[in-house]
Order: sequence, then C-alpha cells, then structure tokens
Amino acid sequence: MTPLKLRKVAIDTYRENVAYLHRACPLYHSEGFQALNKIEIRDGSGEQPVIAVLNIVDDESIVAPDELGLSEQTFDQFGSLTGNPVRIDHASPPLSLRAVHAKIAGDRLCREDFRHICEDIVNKRYSKIEIAAFLVGCAESGMERDEMLYLTEAMVDTGKRLDWGESLVVDKHCIGGIPGNRTTMLIVPIVTAHGMLMPKTSSRAITSPAGTADTMEVLAKVDLQPEEMRAIAHRQRGFIAWGGTADLSPVDDILISVERPLALDSKGQMIASILSKKIAAGSTHLLIDIPVGPSAKVRSQADALKLRKLFEYVGDRTGLQLEVVITEGSQPIGNGVGPALEARDVLRVLQNDPRAPVDLKEKALRLAGRILEFDPDVRGGQGYRLARDLLESGRAWRKMRDIIGAQGAVAEPPAEAKLQFEVLAPASGEIVAIDNLQIAHIARLAGAPMDKAAGLYLCHKLHDRVEQGEPLYTIHAEFHADFEFAKNDAARDIGYTLGE
Amino acid sequence: MTPLKLRKVAIDTYRENVAYLHRACPLYHSEGFQALNKIEIRDGSGEQPVIAVLNIVDDESIVAPDELGLSEQTFDQFGSLTGNPVRIDHASPPLSLRAVHAKIAGDRLCREDFRHICEDIVNKRYSKIEIAAFLVGCAESGMERDEMLYLTEAMVDTGKRLDWGESLVVDKHCIGGIPGNRTTMLIVPIVTAHGMLMPKTSSRAITSPAGTADTMEVLAKVDLQPEEMRAIAHRQRGFIAWGGTADLSPVDDILISVERPLALDSKGQMIASILSKKIAAGSTHLLIDIPVGPSAKVRSQADALKLRKLFEYVGDRTGLQLEVVITEGSQPIGNGVGPALEARDVLRVLQNDPRAPVDLKEKALRLAGRILEFDPDVRGGQGYRLARDLLESGRAWRKMRDIIGAQGAVAEPPAEAKLQFEVLAPASGEIVAIDNLQIAHIARLAGAPMDKAAGLYLCHKLHDRVEQGEPLYTIHAEFHADFEFAKNDAARDIGYTLGE
Repeated sequence: MTPLKLRKVAIDTYRENVAYLHRACPLYHSEGFQALNKIEIRDGSGEQPVIAVLNIVDDESIVAPDELGLSEQTFDQFGSLTGNPVRIDHASPPLSLRAVHAKIAGDRLCREDFRHICEDIVNKRYSKIEIAAFLVGCAESGMERDEMLYLTEAMVDTGKRLDWGESLVVDKHCIGGIPGNRTTMLIVPIVTAHGMLMPKTSSRAITSPAGTADTMEVLAKVDLQPEEMRAIAHRQRGFIAWGGTADLSPVDDILISVERPLALDSKGQMIASILSKKIAAGSTHLLIDIPVGPSAKVRSQADALKLRKLFEYVGDRTGLQLEVVITEGSQPIGNGVGPALEARDVLRVLQNDPRAPVDLKEKALRLAGRILEFDPDVRGGQGYRLARDLLESGRAWRKMRDIIGAQGAVAEPPAEAKLQFEVLAPASGEIVAIDNLQIAHIARLAGAPMDKAAGLYLCHKLHDRVEQGEPLYTIHAEFHADFEFAKNDAARDIGYTLGE
Repeated sequence: MTPLKLRKVAIDTYRENVAYLHRACPLYHSEGFQALNKIEIRDGSGEQPVIAVLNIVDDESIVAPDELGLSEQTFDQFGSLTGNPVRIDHASPPLSLRAVHAKIAGDRLCREDFRHICEDIVNKRYSKIEIAAFLVGCAESGMERDEMLYLTEAMVDTGKRLDWGESLVVDKHCIGGIPGNRTTMLIVPIVTAHGMLMPKTSSRAITSPAGTADTMEVLAKVDLQPEEMRAIAHRQRGFIAWGGTADLSPVDDILISVERPLALDSKGQMIASILSKKIAAGSTHLLIDIPVGPSAKVRSQADALKLRKLFEYVGDRTGLQLEVVITEGSQPIGNGVGPALEARDVLRVLQNDPRAPVDLKEKALRLAGRILEFDPDVRGGQGYRLARDLLESGRAWRKMRDIIGAQGAVAEPPAEAKLQFEVLAPASGEIVAIDNLQIAHIARLAGAPMDKAAGLYLCHKLHDRVEQGEPLYTIHAEFHADFEFAKNDAARDIGYTLGE
C-alpha cells in the first residue's frame, strides 16, 4: 500500500478528529473506506496511531488524491510535518467498548474497566457516538457508588495532576443552577487573607448567564498559564482563574462535550466530574455547596442528602477532606445576574457598601467560615466570625485588590448597559416564588454572558411585598435584538409568582 | 443579522450534515457559535430549516468570511443555489429528545413518542450522539413488544411505501450470520416460476463476506431504479435487486449507520428494522429464517423461540402475514463463501449439477416450500414437493435466466481467483465444529466482498471424517496482501474443530 502525503486542512473540528481523503484516492475504493468510517493514521515512527473520522473530498484544492488531510487539531495531535508519508487503516473499535456493552446490559464495571475506558477516551479512540453510549449506559442503570469512585480515580489518573507542595489546599464547588450565586469571588479573598492557600480554577458559563470565570473577567485577566498561577499563588495565596488550560481530568472535558448537547444529567457523572477536577487541581480540602429549591438542580432535602452521601463516599476514598453544605436554593443569590452586574454585587460586599446584597454576603460568610475551619488552628464553630472579621475589617477587599493586580486588572470595566427595561409587578402581593430557570433564561436572552454588561438586576426578592406597577427587576442589554428577545420572554413568563 | 452567501463545499460527510463557517465571519463571535454546535439554516422561503453540525474554517478558499459552506449532501438537502442568502441560528434540541430521556430513565414510550422521534430523525434534527442515546436507551432497559410495534410503524410511516397492486406479495428474510447461506437466489426463481410475485430487494454485505446483492451482482446488474423494478416485476414476477435506492424506512438506514459502529445488538431494533423495511417494500407475506447454532447470531432454541414470538406479535399487528422458521445454523450453508463462489453454488443447484451442495439445495427447497404455501391454492404440506418439482424440472433455472436477462446480465463473469491456498487438516478425525464467525473473517480478509472472486471454498463440512493433511477448504484471493492476511489468520485459527 503506497503511503499518502500528509496535509493540514484549515478546518476546526474541535474535539472530533477528522481526516479528509479525496474520492479519487486509489485507497478509497481498494480498501473500502467510506465517509464517517473511523481510520487509524500512522507515520513510520512506531508511535500510537491517531484515530479520526473520515470525510471524502471532491475538491483537489482541499486535498489531492495522493494526500491525506487532517483537521487543525488532528494535525497538531498527530505531530508530523506536511508532506510526510502516512499510512491509513480501518480502525478497530477500542477494546474497552466491551465494558461499555456490559454496562449497557446492566452489569457492574470494575476499577480496571473504568481505567481502560478513560485511557481509550483520552487517546481519542472513542468516537462521539461511543462516548454517548458510555454516558447513556452509565445514566440509565445508574452507577454503584464504587463505580463512581473508580470513574473518578480513572479520570484523575489519565490527566495531569497539580501539586502545590502544601498539606492544606482548599477549594469549593457549587453544583450550580442558582443565578447570581457568586460566592467564590468573596470566599477566595476572605480565606487567602487568613493565609490559607486557595488556588481557584473556575469554569465559564455553559448554560447559565455567568460562570465565576466570566464574572472575574470583568475585573481581571483570567486566562492564566500554569506558571502564572503558580507565581500568583506563591505571593498571594490564591487567585481566581479560568481552569480550561491545565489539562486536568481531560476525560471530563471530553465527556462534557457529549453530555451537554444530550442534556444528560447523571449523579455518578456529576460526582466523578467535580471530584476528578478538584483532585487533579491538587486540592486537599473541599467544600461542596448543594442548593435545594423548587427550581434548583436538587429539588428536595432527601435528594440532597443522598447526593451528600455519595460525595462523602467518593471523597473519603480518594483522600480528599470533603464537607458538604446544603443551602437555600429557592431564588437567585444577590441582585445582579450576568457578569458585570454580579461583579458589582461582589465589590459592594467586599467594600462594605450599604447597597451590598445581604443574602450573598451571608452565604459567602457561612461557606468561607466552613473553609476556615479546615485550618487546625481555627476552633470549631469560630469560622463564621473569623470570616466576618476578615470581610468587615476591609482585609478581604485589600486582598482582592492584590489578587486582581497580580492577575492583571482590567483597564476599563464595562459601562452600564445602554438598554434597560423595568419589568413591573402585574399585581400587588407577596412574592411567593422566583423561578431560577426562567430568570437565567431571560438573562441569557439579554446577552449574558457574552455581553458582560447584559443580564438582570433584581429589585425584589422572595417574601417581599410589592404594589402593582412597582419594578421587580431591570433587564440590561447591549443589542436591540437581544433586548427585544428578553423583553418578550419576560412578557410571556415573568419568572416571579405573586400571592398572599 | 446580515445573511451569509451559500456555498457548496466539495466534502462528502455521508449521513451527517456539516456546515462550514469562516473564523473571521462576524457571526462567529457575536453569536457565540462554536465548532460542533448544531445550527439551523434557513433561506427566506419559510421552509423547514436544515440542521447541521458546525465546523470552523481558517482557509478562505474553502469558505470566505461572508459565506456559509455546506457539505455535498447538506447542500443538496437544503436545495438552494450557490450565492443565495441564508441565515443561521443556534438549533434547539429536538422536542422528541424528552421521550429519549424518559426512555433512558426506564419509562415506556407510547405510539406518539416513537412517531415524533422518527420524524425528527428523518428530518435530520438528531445528531449522531442523540441517535446513539436513543439506541442505547432502547437497548439497555429493552423495549416492550408494544414499543417494538410502535417503532416499526413509525419507521414505515416516515418513508416511502411501495404498492404492487396485488394481494399476495411474498418476501423472505434471514436474520443473518451464516456464511454462504444464499437461499434467496434459489427461492426467487422457484416461487416466481410458480407465478407468485416476489420483488426482492436485498442488502450488500456490511460485516459478512457477501450479501445477496453482492452475489447477484456477479450475474446481473442490481442497482435498479424503482421504474425498472416495477417493469421487471410486471413481466418476470420478480427480481433480486439492491434495496438501497428506494427510500424505504429511511430511519432504519440512519439508525443502522450509528448502531453498526457501536456494535449494538438489540432485539427490538432488529425486529423494527427488518419488518419496517419489508412493510415499506410492499410485502404482504413474509418468511423469516432464524438460524440457530453455537456461532450463529441466535445460540439457543429458547432464544430463537422468544425472537419468533416477537416477530409474530409485531407482524400480526402490522397486517403482515408472517411465518418464522428456525433452521440449523451450526455451520456455513453450501460450499462457497464470497460472491463468485456462492454464485457458483447457486448456479449448480439451479442447473441440477451433481456438484451442487445438498445442504443449500435442501434449505432453499424447504423455505421456498413454505412460501409457496402462502398461495391459497397450494395444499398445506405440499410446498416442498412443488418447490422440488419447479427446481428439478429446470423451470426455476429458466426463470432465473429470464430474470438475469431482464436486470441486465453481466457480460463477463469474474474468472477464478489467481491466488489459491489449501488449508489442510492438522490431524485426522471427525469435524465436530465449524466456526461461522472465523470462516467469515478469513473470507473477508481474503478480499470478499470487494473482490468478487475472493473467499473460501469448503471441501468438508460438519461430521465429515478427514485424514491429516487432507484439504478442509481453499482460500481464494486476488491480491497478495489479502492472501497473506487470510493465510496467516487461518494459521492462527483454522475455524474447524476436529475430534472423535
């Protein structure tokens, strides 16, 4: 079989490896290749082959009949040079797919099974549909808690793992779903002002109006290189950065890229995802926040307790000191929803501004207090008071300014949104419910998190009494189309329920 | 939002719709599109949007920043002209995905659920991973027999349906897995010689060394257009064509394109796949062949019986007259494995050649007999004798020549393979087992079905006594590389077990 000449095709296929073969390539017919086949690509080096999905090309300017084209990421992963000879072959399915079939049939998988699956996934031997089969197989019959443990361990072991060289590296994670809930940006300055090490990597919003990284980005640079993180942690004891660059638990990123469009929601997957990322990030002590409420991710106290036990089970067996707090999740936290509006709430709390939202401050103090109690020198039950002292004395605010300076302060914070609209109470009464999902939805339609200044500002919260015509919240938008989308959706469903 | 200019990109992405957007396109950033996002594409016509997966391009010769490229099939499906204005938007997930989630959670789905799922699939609103989620969801908790019925009906209703204008249109289907089992090419001439209508559409091999369409192609053209099929059926009462062109149960083809690489094997899916295709092809009476054996798809009589009941349940409720025969599947049928070698067996049976394989002849007569008994004028139990008369009198052979002529005879049948190798008995003894899977595997390595003359010719079958050094079978190949692959694999595992 004559080799093909390697060529980079300037197409970005993200997490999917794609190879391009011209229809007139002699191999296309003689070897029975077909579009969407999985192929193995080798140069002569004896390295592991790269696996890609095949597309057939009818245009010689994209690839010629004697060439094999690779999409940008695939070319980079393959690591050979343009024009170099490569050979292709039909890819055999990954061996660990047998375990996936066993899982689909309802079997329990062992530690080795999860290890092989994660190794094959991280080596891109799984196609998207094979990943989907694994996820659905795990979602449907569910995973035993031991299986969650094995998956977590395997996800950690197939990526990099940071080591901060200290025995107390704290972290927190909220399972999400509550708009405005930006406690991390308060907790990091509080606990690092106390001297604890809290190197915080956060995510950007995927389905929500803002992630911690989006909100921090209003104030400082968040795309930090690993060396920068290390230097800032050394001098400031902490930072708030985007966690996308560190190759921590890479299997998690790949699973999420399939799980998300499927809107699959499996407890086992969530626990393995969160804990593997934290362990890989080098955390030793972790506080998990599970908000409970009628429109939160977890809707009952009983479900929250079950989830807490699972976190504890896996955490204990992976050597993580883990505490779970179950919090009130029946409405947004704070008043701002969207990066800039949330950042304003955070700054007001740090600056002890009288306009600071009390619920955000209280929740942050409660969580920071629990984290401070990870310090052996802090007496049990004294964490909240210590946190409050750190905040109200201005030490947390000074620390936050130092962190912002170290990460690189944003020169000009975004101006207030040009377009604003007050959504008014349709009747007088008490606010008896606020729908987290609808509030988040309207804020996203308004442009959050892409437009930093877009989102909602809530004027009233649960149990407030309002008169007809009083504003409930303000919609902020940068662009007319978004503004109209958000206003129309609020007119359809205001997200607030008034009653007596 | 300014529209983009439509452009066809000469890339074949088979069953997956792919759209190409340049990274410098203003929409890429402002709208937050990302590689692998699903987008909706509209022209101004108010037609249903086309859904595609997005790839981001960095080469203006593929698409310019003001253009939207579509892969070949996507462009054709969209049906608009190059340069026409199009608008794109984020695609919302198909509504019927809720039913898929319910299925994954273990619920039973109703008739309407399956209908909506099939409609969304046929309209390409499902990505491959969503299809995988549906298939795994159905495979794992399994489907109730009513769900198999609903799925079958929905698959028929979302495609074309042929109507032959007669009340007795017969068909047969074998669930597969037995090499050499080419009974269809005997049954069609026998039952059409009796005057029954048997318009037979068959598949090409996907994982086997030959499908009926591959074998018939040795003798005649099989890529027939619907009008040709109609004309030949009218004059000859039957044909043996490739079934890929008729848009029958298109959902089945889409599901198979995901199911196959996953190697998923679900009873419900198999039954819906087979029966939907047959119903859509206009069959009224159907004979199903379930071979049972240690290396067949169905391994026990009990499993075969369960499967029979399911076929009967769905068949009865879709108005199909359906009979199931459970046959011997512990070894290949006939002596040839591979298109040309199987065609030779078939011709020998039709020509009453003394070298004809008895097992192939007997099995074909038995099945043809059962089909002949669908004729109200054929007395119960007389089908086999009638079939034998039709065959041994030469009437079936004359009919086959007429059908071959009508479809378009192949000018020059393939010559015997250039490379041949006898695999010898390693010891003396009785042949106590033949592994269907290994025989098929060696034949495929030898080049079948791509090389028509490649495959195996079996010299001995189950329960024959052989002396050490006597040939068990001959490997036929056209190319040296294939020949070596096949010989080496036979040396590793001969596929025959000798005992006493």
